Amino acid sequence: MKLIVAVVQDKDSNRLSNALVDQDYRATKLASTGGFLRAGNTTFLIGVEDEHVNKVLDIIQNNCKSREQLVAPVSPMGGNADSYVPYPVEVQVGGATVFIMQVEQFEQF
Amino acid sequence: MKLIVAVVQDKDSNRLSNALVDQDYRATKLASTGGFLRAGNTTFLIGVEDEHVNKVLDIIQNNCKSREQLVAPVSPMGGNADSYVPYPVEVQVGGATVFIMQVEQFEQF
Amino acid sequence: MKLIVAVVQDKDSNRLSNALVDQDYRATKLASTGGFLRAGNTTFLIGVEDEHVNKVLDIIQNNCKSREQLVAPVSPMGGNADSYVPYPVEVQVGGATVFIMQVEQFEQF
Ligand code: NI
Ligand code: NI
Ligand code: NI
Repeated sequence: MKLIVAVVQDKDSNRLSNALVDQDYRATKLASTGGFLRAGNTTFLIGVEDEHVNKVLDIIQNNCKSREQLVAPVSPMGGNADSYVPYPVEVQVGGATVFIMQVEQFEQF
Repeated sequence: MKLIVAVVQDKDSNRLSNALVDQDYRATKLASTGGFLRAGNTTFLIGVEDEHVNKVLDIIQNNCKSREQLVAPVSPMGGNADSYVPYPVEVQVGGATVFIMQVEQFEQF
Repeated sequence: MKLIVAVVQDKDSNRLSNALVDQDYRATKLASTGGFLRAGNTTFLIGVEDEHVNKVLDIIQNNCKSREQLVAPVSPMGGNADSYVPYPVEVQVGGATVFIMQVEQFEQF
């Protein structure tokens, strides 16, 4: 058995939860901050049998993969009009950092 | 040495903390949600020497074991009187999901 | 690769974060309570290649090591004047409990 520790952005967290539940994988979520990813993030603990690891990694990748997103320009309220960019810009969002650990013993009570 | 990662329901969390402290085991608690167990839950990290693992598992089982609880009926305030059950019902509470991991190196500063 | 799980006091948490970022180590922080250390604490998850473990342990030790601190006396407002200690006292602060775990597989999406 493996314990998958996956750090994902908050914005992808609910979608990942739902996708895992849809496929009968059970995860617990820990509120976490900073570091691996720029924005607020959530750490998932997912316990799976060895032969399910690749399936769970696919689910994580499909729901959290780093991608570019167009962000609408914000008008420069009281800001520096010289640096104002009047068209949408692409920013990178999402991404997942995943550690897979060996579980020596698993118990349910 | 082992790191025991135990996900338990919030309602059992304080009792488990106290039982661990009583027997001189030290744990850290992480706020967690969803997944392994229906209600709000708490993730315990407990570092122990190998020969203490079974003792800690006993403590977790004794304090968090899944069990049935009688819940008093609630009067159907503005609800559907047809579906009102006028006697206590049994619901399942508690339960623990426990992963035991090998610790390669342990340090205290 | 290793996953370093470090439980440190809240008061040292920001300093440790900054020191890790300064040296290009990425960590995620989990809010945690009780147990390993007396006061509120933070659990760091730090993924590093094997050859960087000792460097990260040095950073943790340098920023979180258990040490004594002088605490100014507080006047016994409505308290028991008999037990009032009119000079600064030394209390122990800081400290870190660190588990180093083997990572079987690491993925970034
Ligand atoms: Ni299967
Ligand atoms: Ni012993
Ligand atoms: Ni290197």
